[in-house]
Amino acid sequence: MQVSVDFCLIPLGVGVSLAKYIAACKPILDQAAVSWELHAYGTLIEGDWDDVFTAIKACHQKVHEMGAPRITTTLKVGTRTDKEQTMSDKVDSVMRLWHETAE
Amino acid sequence: MQVSVDFCLIPLGVGVSLAKYIAACKPILDQAAVSWELHAYGTLIEGDWDDVFTAIKACHQKVHEMGAPRITTTLKVGTRTDKEQTMSDKVDSVMRLWHETAE
Amino acid sequence: MQVSVDFCLIPLGVGVSLAKYIAACKPILDQAAVSWELHAYGTLIEGDWDDVFTAIKACHQKVHEMGAPRITTTLKVGTRTDKEQTMSDKVDSVMRLWHETAE
Amino acid sequence: MQVSVDFCLIPLGVGVSLAKYIAACKPILDQAAVSWELHAYGTLIEGDWDDVFTAIKACHQKVHEMGAPRITTTLKVGTRTDKEQTMSDKVDSVMRLWHETAE
Repeated sequence: MQVSVDFCLIPLGVGVSLAKYIAACKPILDQAAVSWELHAYGTLIEGDWDDVFTAIKACHQKVHEMGAPRITTTLKVGTRTDKEQTMSDKVDSVMRLWHETAE
Repeated sequence: MQVSVDFCLIPLGVGVSLAKYIAACKPILDQAAVSWELHAYGTLIEGDWDDVFTAIKACHQKVHEMGAPRITTTLKVGTRTDKEQTMSDKVDSVMRLWHETAE
Repeated sequence: MQVSVDFCLIPLGVGVSLAKYIAACKPILDQAAVSWELHAYGTLIEGDWDDVFTAIKACHQKVHEMGAPRITTTLKVGTRTDKEQTMSDKVDSVMRLWHETAE
Repeated sequence: MQVSVDFCLIPLGVGVSLAKYIAACKPILDQAAVSWELHAYGTLIEGDWDDVFTAIKACHQKVHEMGAPRITTTLKVGTRTDKEQTMSDKVDSVMRLWHETAE
Protein backbone atom coordinates (compact mmCIF):
# COMPACT_ATOMS: atom_id res chain seq x y z
CA MET A 1 0.00 0.00 0.00
CA GLN A 2 1.49 3.32 -1.13
CA VAL A 3 1.28 6.19 1.32
CA SER A 4 1.88 9.96 1.28
CA VAL A 5 2.91 11.38 4.63
CA ASP A 6 3.48 14.84 6.07
CA PHE A 7 5.92 14.25 8.94
CA CYS A 8 6.75 16.84 11.61
CA LEU A 9 8.95 15.64 14.48
CA ILE A 10 9.39 17.89 17.53
CA PRO A 11 12.02 16.92 20.12
CA LEU A 12 11.27 18.23 23.63
CA GLY A 13 13.70 19.03 26.41
CA VAL A 14 16.48 20.13 24.07
CA GLY A 15 15.88 23.86 23.75
CA VAL A 16 14.36 25.75 20.84
CA SER A 17 16.83 25.01 18.03
CA LEU A 18 15.53 21.90 16.38
CA ALA A 19 17.36 22.06 13.06
CA LYS A 20 20.12 19.61 14.01
CA TYR A 21 17.57 16.95 14.96
CA ILE A 22 15.69 17.39 11.70
CA ALA A 23 18.98 17.28 9.81
CA ALA A 24 19.90 13.99 11.50
CA CYS A 25 16.86 12.37 9.90
CA LYS A 26 18.16 13.10 6.40
CA PRO A 27 20.48 10.06 6.07
CA ILE A 28 17.69 7.82 7.38
CA LEU A 29 15.29 9.04 4.72
CA ASP A 30 18.00 8.95 2.04
CA GLN A 31 18.72 5.30 2.78
CA ALA A 32 15.06 4.32 2.86
CA ALA A 33 13.24 3.37 -0.33
CA VAL A 34 11.12 6.50 -0.16
CA SER A 35 11.02 9.87 -1.88
CA TRP A 36 10.93 12.89 0.37
CA GLU A 37 11.11 16.65 0.43
CA LEU A 38 11.51 19.18 3.24
CA HIS A 39 9.13 22.12 3.66
CA ALA A 40 8.95 24.82 6.32
CA TYR A 41 6.67 22.88 8.68
CA GLY A 42 7.55 19.26 8.06
CA THR A 43 8.78 16.71 5.55
CA LEU A 44 6.72 15.09 2.79
CA ILE A 45 7.47 11.38 2.39
CA GLU A 46 6.11 9.01 -0.22
CA GLY A 47 6.59 5.27 -0.58
CA ASP A 48 5.40 1.87 0.53
CA TRP A 49 3.65 1.96 3.93
CA ASP A 50 6.22 -0.27 5.66
CA ASP A 51 9.23 1.59 4.27
CA VAL A 52 7.80 4.95 5.29
CA PHE A 53 6.90 3.93 8.84
CA THR A 54 10.17 2.04 9.36
CA ALA A 55 11.97 5.28 8.48
CA ILE A 56 9.79 7.34 10.82
CA LYS A 57 10.47 4.92 13.68
CA ALA A 58 14.21 5.12 12.95
CA CYS A 59 13.99 8.94 13.13
CA HIS A 60 12.42 8.72 16.60
CA GLN A 61 15.14 6.30 17.72
CA LYS A 62 17.92 8.49 16.28
CA VAL A 63 16.60 11.68 17.92
CA HIS A 64 16.31 9.92 21.29
CA GLU A 65 19.92 8.67 20.89
CA MET A 66 20.99 12.27 20.26
CA GLY A 67 19.69 13.10 23.71
CA ALA A 68 16.09 14.20 23.33
CA PRO A 69 14.17 12.62 26.22
CA ARG A 70 10.77 13.23 24.66
CA ILE A 71 9.40 13.55 21.12
CA THR A 72 6.01 14.52 19.80
CA THR A 73 5.38 14.00 16.09
CA THR A 74 2.43 15.11 13.98
CA LEU A 75 1.64 13.06 10.88
CA LYS A 76 -0.85 13.34 8.05
CA VAL A 77 -1.14 9.99 6.31
CA GLY A 78 -2.88 9.58 2.94
CA THR A 79 -3.72 6.35 1.12
CA ARG A 80 -5.93 5.79 -1.91
CA THR A 81 -7.02 2.85 -4.00
CA ASP A 82 -8.70 4.70 -6.86
CA LYS A 83 -5.58 5.92 -8.64
CA GLU A 84 -1.88 6.42 -8.28
CA GLN A 85 -1.01 9.98 -7.44
CA THR A 86 2.38 11.38 -6.56
CA MET A 87 2.91 14.42 -4.36
CA SER A 88 3.59 16.61 -7.39
CA ASP A 89 0.38 15.36 -9.09
CA LYS A 90 -1.57 16.70 -6.14
CA VAL A 91 -0.06 20.17 -6.42
CA ASP A 92 -0.48 20.08 -10.20
CA SER A 93 -4.20 19.35 -10.01
CA VAL A 94 -4.76 22.44 -7.89
CA MET A 95 -2.47 24.60 -10.03
CA ARG A 96 -4.32 23.56 -13.19
CA LEU A 97 -7.59 24.78 -11.72
CA TRP A 98 -6.04 28.11 -10.79
CA HIS A 99 -4.85 28.67 -14.33
CA GLU A 100 -8.21 27.70 -15.82
CA THR A 101 -9.96 30.07 -13.45
CA ALA A 102 -7.55 32.87 -14.27
CA GLU A 103 -8.13 32.58 -18.01
CA MET B 1 9.78 1.59 22.15
CA GLN B 2 6.45 2.49 23.80
CA VAL B 3 4.32 5.02 21.98
CA SER B 4 1.19 7.08 22.72
CA VAL B 5 -0.83 7.93 19.64
CA ASP B 6 -3.84 10.11 18.89
CA PHE B 7 -5.35 8.52 15.75
CA CYS B 8 -8.02 10.18 13.59
CA LEU B 9 -8.91 8.37 10.36
CA ILE B 10 -11.10 10.16 7.79
CA PRO B 11 -12.43 8.12 4.83
CA LEU B 12 -13.15 10.24 1.74
CA GLY B 13 -15.65 9.57 -1.03
CA VAL B 14 -18.16 7.83 1.24
CA GLY B 15 -20.39 10.68 2.36
CA VAL B 16 -20.47 12.44 5.71
CA SER B 17 -21.38 9.61 8.08
CA LEU B 18 -18.10 8.16 9.17
CA ALA B 19 -19.18 6.27 12.31
CA LYS B 20 -19.41 2.86 10.64
CA TYR B 21 -15.81 3.11 9.41
CA ILE B 22 -14.54 4.11 12.83
CA ALA B 23 -16.57 1.29 14.38
CA ALA B 24 -14.96 -1.22 12.00
CA CYS B 25 -11.57 -0.41 13.49
CA LYS B 26 -12.69 -1.57 16.94
CA PRO B 27 -12.06 -5.33 16.45
CA ILE B 28 -8.65 -4.54 14.96
CA LEU B 29 -7.66 -2.53 18.02
CA ASP B 30 -9.22 -5.07 20.37
CA GLN B 31 -7.14 -7.86 18.85
CA ALA B 32 -3.92 -5.83 18.90
CA ALA B 33 -1.71 -5.80 22.00
CA VAL B 34 -2.54 -2.15 22.63
CA SER B 35 -4.74 -0.20 25.00
CA TRP B 36 -7.06 2.30 23.40
CA GLU B 37 -9.91 4.69 24.08
CA LEU B 38 -12.24 6.63 21.82
CA HIS B 39 -12.77 10.38 22.20
CA ALA B 40 -14.81 12.82 20.16
CA TYR B 41 -12.05 13.66 17.66
CA GLY B 42 -9.99 10.50 17.48
CA THR B 43 -8.79 7.43 19.31
CA LEU B 44 -5.98 7.29 21.84
CA ILE B 45 -3.77 4.21 21.43
CA GLU B 46 -0.90 3.11 23.63
CA GLY B 47 1.52 0.22 23.20
CA ASP B 48 4.68 -0.97 21.55
CA TRP B 49 5.53 1.03 18.39
CA ASP B 50 5.22 -1.95 16.04
CA ASP B 51 1.94 -3.18 17.51
CA VAL B 52 0.39 0.29 17.30
CA PHE B 53 1.43 0.96 13.71
CA THR B 54 0.52 -2.54 12.54
CA ALA B 55 -2.98 -1.87 13.90
CA ILE B 56 -3.19 1.54 12.21
CA LYS B 57 -2.13 0.01 8.88
CA ALA B 58 -4.79 -2.70 9.30
CA CYS B 59 -7.41 0.01 9.91
CA HIS B 60 -6.46 1.71 6.61
CA GLN B 61 -6.69 -1.63 4.80
CA LYS B 62 -10.05 -2.46 6.41
CA VAL B 63 -11.59 0.92 5.55
CA HIS B 64 -10.41 0.63 1.93
CA GLU B 65 -11.93 -2.88 1.77
CA MET B 66 -15.23 -1.41 3.00
CA GLY B 67 -15.25 0.78 -0.10
CA ALA B 68 -13.52 4.03 0.82
CA PRO B 69 -11.33 4.95 -2.17
CA ARG B 70 -9.30 7.49 -0.23
CA ILE B 71 -8.28 7.99 3.41
CA THR B 72 -6.54 10.81 5.21
CA THR B 73 -5.42 10.19 8.76
CA THR B 74 -4.02 12.63 11.30
CA LEU B 75 -1.73 11.22 13.99
CA LYS B 76 0.03 12.65 17.02
CA VAL B 77 2.80 10.29 18.10
CA GLY B 78 4.59 10.60 21.44
CA THR B 79 7.65 8.70 22.66
CA ARG B 80 9.83 9.34 25.69
CA THR B 81 12.90 7.76 27.22
CA ASP B 82 12.96 9.64 30.54
CA LYS B 83 10.10 7.84 32.25
CA GLU B 84 7.17 5.55 31.70
CA GLN B 85 3.93 7.46 31.50
CA THR B 86 0.52 6.11 30.64
CA MET B 87 -2.24 8.17 29.06
CA SER B 88 -4.02 8.52 32.39
CA ASP B 89 -0.77 9.68 34.09
CA LYS B 90 -0.66 12.58 31.62
CA VAL B 91 -4.17 13.70 32.45
CA ASP B 92 -3.51 13.21 36.19
CA SER B 93 -0.43 15.44 36.18
CA VAL B 94 -2.48 18.32 34.75
CA MET B 95 -5.42 17.64 37.07
CA ARG B 96 -3.13 17.69 40.10
CA LEU B 97 -1.91 21.15 39.20
CA TRP B 98 -5.47 22.42 38.82
CA HIS B 99 -6.39 21.20 42.27
CA GLU B 100 -3.28 22.69 43.85
CA THR B 101 -4.03 26.01 42.18
CA ALA B 102 -7.63 25.91 43.32
CA GLU B 103 -6.74 25.40 46.98
CA MET C 1 -20.29 28.88 12.73
CA GLN C 2 -19.96 26.15 15.39
CA VAL C 3 -16.67 24.33 15.52
CA SER C 4 -15.25 21.22 17.25
CA VAL C 5 -11.53 21.39 17.88
CA ASP C 6 -8.87 19.01 19.15
CA PHE C 7 -6.18 21.31 20.57
CA CYS C 8 -2.67 20.17 21.53
CA LEU C 9 -0.23 22.92 22.54
CA ILE C 10 3.47 22.06 22.96
CA PRO C 11 5.77 24.67 24.51
CA LEU C 12 9.42 24.33 23.41
CA GLY C 13 12.53 25.39 25.28
CA VAL C 14 11.06 24.72 28.73
CA GLY C 15 12.08 21.11 29.38
CA VAL C 16 9.93 18.01 29.22
CA SER C 17 7.31 18.69 31.91
CA LEU C 18 4.51 20.45 30.11
CA ALA C 19 1.67 19.96 32.61
CA LYS C 20 1.94 23.42 34.20
CA TYR C 21 1.57 25.10 30.81
CA ILE C 22 -1.47 23.02 29.93
CA ALA C 23 -2.91 23.74 33.38
CA ALA C 24 -2.47 27.49 32.83
CA CYS C 25 -4.85 27.28 29.86
CA LYS C 26 -7.68 26.06 32.10
CA PRO C 27 -8.87 29.47 33.38
CA ILE C 28 -8.77 30.81 29.81
CA LEU C 29 -11.03 28.03 28.57
CA ASP C 30 -13.25 28.29 31.66
CA GLN C 31 -13.84 31.99 31.02
CA ALA C 32 -14.50 31.51 27.31
CA ALA C 33 -18.00 30.69 26.07
CA VAL C 34 -16.90 27.21 25.04
CA SER C 35 -17.27 23.69 26.38
CA TRP C 36 -14.09 21.71 26.71
CA GLU C 37 -12.62 18.48 28.02
CA LEU C 38 -9.06 17.29 28.54
CA HIS C 39 -7.83 13.97 27.14
CA ALA C 40 -4.40 12.35 27.23
CA TYR C 41 -3.16 13.93 23.97
CA GLY C 42 -4.97 17.25 23.81
CA THR C 43 -8.11 19.15 24.74
CA LEU C 44 -11.46 18.96 22.95
CA ILE C 45 -13.12 22.38 22.59
CA GLU C 46 -16.55 23.14 21.19
CA GLY C 47 -18.21 26.49 20.56
CA ASP C 48 -18.57 29.38 18.16
CA TRP C 49 -15.56 29.72 15.80
CA ASP C 50 -14.53 33.15 17.11
CA ASP C 51 -14.82 32.19 20.78
CA VAL C 52 -12.79 29.03 20.26
CA PHE C 53 -9.98 30.70 18.31
CA THR C 54 -9.85 33.71 20.64
CA ALA C 55 -9.29 31.26 23.51
CA ILE C 56 -6.59 29.37 21.60
CA LYS C 57 -4.77 32.64 20.82
CA ALA C 58 -4.99 33.61 24.51
CA CYS C 59 -3.44 30.24 25.45
CA HIS C 60 -0.47 30.91 23.13
CA GLN C 61 -0.04 34.39 24.65
CA LYS C 62 -0.27 33.04 28.21
CA VAL C 63 2.28 30.26 27.62
CA HIS C 64 4.72 32.75 26.05
CA GLU C 65 4.25 35.05 29.09
CA MET C 66 5.10 32.10 31.33
CA GLY C 67 8.48 31.95 29.61
CA ALA C 68 8.14 29.55 26.70
CA PRO C 69 10.04 31.11 23.78
CA ARG C 70 8.48 28.85 21.17
CA ILE C 71 5.19 26.97 20.81
CA THR C 72 3.97 24.45 18.28
CA THR C 73 0.29 23.53 18.38
CA THR C 74 -1.56 20.83 16.48
CA LEU C 75 -5.27 21.37 15.83
CA LYS C 76 -8.02 19.35 14.24
CA VAL C 77 -10.91 21.62 13.33
CA GLY C 78 -14.35 20.32 12.35
CA THR C 79 -17.32 22.28 10.99
CA ARG C 80 -20.55 21.00 9.46
CA THR C 81 -23.66 22.56 8.01
CA ASP C 82 -25.79 19.42 7.68
CA LYS C 83 -26.67 18.97 11.33
CA GLU C 84 -25.78 20.02 14.83
CA GLN C 85 -23.58 17.48 16.54
CA THR C 86 -21.91 17.77 19.90
CA MET C 87 -18.73 15.97 20.84
CA SER C 88 -20.65 13.38 22.84
CA ASP C 89 -23.00 12.76 19.86
CA LYS C 90 -19.97 11.75 17.82
CA VAL C 91 -18.80 9.20 20.36
CA ASP C 92 -22.39 7.96 20.80
CA SER C 93 -22.87 7.29 17.09
CA VAL C 94 -19.82 5.01 17.05
CA MET C 95 -20.79 3.33 20.33
CA ARG C 96 -24.27 2.59 19.00
CA LEU C 97 -22.80 0.75 16.02
CA TRP C 98 -20.56 -1.33 18.29
CA HIS C 99 -23.51 -2.41 20.36
CA GLU C 100 -25.60 -3.26 17.31
CA THR C 101 -22.73 -5.29 15.92
CA ALA C 102 -22.24 -7.09 19.21
CA GLU C 103 -25.85 -8.19 19.45
CA MET D 1 1.77 37.92 17.23
CA GLN D 2 3.27 36.40 14.07
CA VAL D 3 2.30 32.83 13.28
CA SER D 4 3.42 30.10 10.87
CA VAL D 5 0.69 27.66 9.96
CA ASP D 6 0.48 24.41 8.01
CA PHE D 7 -3.16 24.27 6.85
CA CYS D 8 -4.82 21.18 5.38
CA LEU D 9 -8.56 21.43 4.74
CA ILE D 10 -10.51 18.27 3.85
CA PRO D 11 -14.13 18.65 2.65
CA LEU D 12 -16.28 15.57 3.34
CA GLY D 13 -19.34 14.40 1.46
CA VAL D 14 -18.15 15.70 -1.92
CA GLY D 15 -16.30 12.71 -3.35
CA VAL D 16 -12.57 12.18 -3.63
CA SER D 17 -11.50 15.05 -5.90
CA LEU D 18 -10.69 17.88 -3.55
CA ALA D 19 -8.60 20.09 -5.84
CA LYS D 20 -11.42 22.50 -6.72
CA TYR D 21 -12.09 23.22 -3.06
CA ILE D 22 -8.44 23.86 -2.34
CA ALA D 23 -8.25 26.07 -5.44
CA ALA D 24 -11.22 28.13 -4.20
CA CYS D 25 -9.18 29.12 -1.14
CA LYS D 26 -6.53 30.79 -3.32
CA PRO D 27 -8.31 34.16 -3.78
CA ILE D 28 -9.03 34.27 -0.05
CA LEU D 29 -5.37 33.81 0.80
CA ASP D 30 -4.30 36.20 -1.97
CA GLN D 31 -6.50 38.94 -0.56
CA ALA D 32 -5.39 38.38 3.02
CA ALA D 33 -2.29 40.11 4.37
CA VAL D 34 -0.44 36.81 4.59
CA SER D 35 2.23 35.01 2.62
CA TRP D 36 1.45 31.48 1.63
CA GLU D 37 2.65 28.54 -0.43
CA LEU D 38 1.03 25.28 -1.48
CA HIS D 39 2.71 21.92 -0.88
CA ALA D 40 1.53 18.39 -1.57
CA TYR D 41 -0.20 17.89 1.79
CA GLY D 42 -1.30 21.36 2.78
CA THR D 43 -0.63 25.07 2.53
CA LEU D 44 1.96 27.01 4.51
CA ILE D 45 0.67 30.40 5.69
CA GLU D 46 2.58 33.11 7.51
CA GLY D 47 1.38 36.40 8.94
CA ASP D 48 -0.27 38.09 11.89
CA TRP D 49 -2.36 35.68 13.99
CA ASP D 50 -5.65 37.45 13.32
CA ASP D 51 -5.09 37.77 9.58
CA VAL D 52 -4.15 34.10 9.26
CA PHE D 53 -7.12 32.79 11.26
CA THR D 54 -9.59 35.15 9.59
CA ALA D 55 -8.45 33.70 6.26
CA ILE D 56 -8.77 30.11 7.50
CA LYS D 57 -12.31 30.80 8.75
CA ALA D 58 -13.18 32.34 5.37
CA CYS D 59 -11.89 29.18 3.64
CA HIS D 60 -14.23 27.02 5.79
CA GLN D 61 -17.15 29.32 4.96
CA LYS D 62 -16.33 29.30 1.24
CA VAL D 63 -16.03 25.50 1.03
CA HIS D 64 -19.36 25.08 2.86
CA GLU D 65 -20.96 27.55 0.39
CA MET D 66 -19.61 25.42 -2.47
CA GLY D 67 -21.66 22.53 -1.10
CA ALA D 68 -19.46 20.61 1.29
CA PRO D 69 -21.63 19.69 4.28
CA ARG D 70 -18.71 18.80 6.50
CA ILE D 71 -15.06 19.85 6.76
CA THR D 72 -12.18 18.57 8.84
CA THR D 73 -9.00 20.64 8.88
CA THR D 74 -5.62 19.80 10.36
CA LEU D 75 -3.41 22.70 11.43
CA LYS D 76 0.08 23.03 12.81
CA VAL D 77 0.50 26.46 14.40
CA GLY D 78 3.88 27.88 15.40
CA THR D 79 4.64 31.04 17.36
CA ARG D 80 7.89 32.22 18.89
CA THR D 81 9.05 35.22 20.88
CA ASP D 82 12.80 34.61 20.78
CA LYS D 83 13.42 35.68 17.19
CA GLU D 84 11.77 36.42 13.91
CA GLN D 85 11.96 33.51 11.55
CA THR D 86 10.30 33.16 8.18
CA MET D 87 9.32 29.86 6.62
CA SER D 88 12.36 29.91 4.33
CA ASP D 89 14.67 30.62 7.31
CA LYS D 90 13.49 27.36 8.85
CA VAL D 91 14.30 25.33 5.76
CA ASP D 92 17.64 27.18 5.39
CA SER D 93 18.77 26.34 8.92
CA VAL D 94 18.30 22.62 8.24
CA MET D 95 19.90 22.85 4.78
CA ARG D 96 22.96 24.60 6.22
CA LEU D 97 23.52 21.72 8.64
CA TRP D 98 23.28 19.20 5.81
CA HIS D 99 25.92 21.01 3.81
CA GLU D 100 28.25 21.33 6.80
CA THR D 101 27.86 17.64 7.52
CA ALA D 102 28.51 16.75 3.90
CA GLU D 103 31.80 18.65 3.75
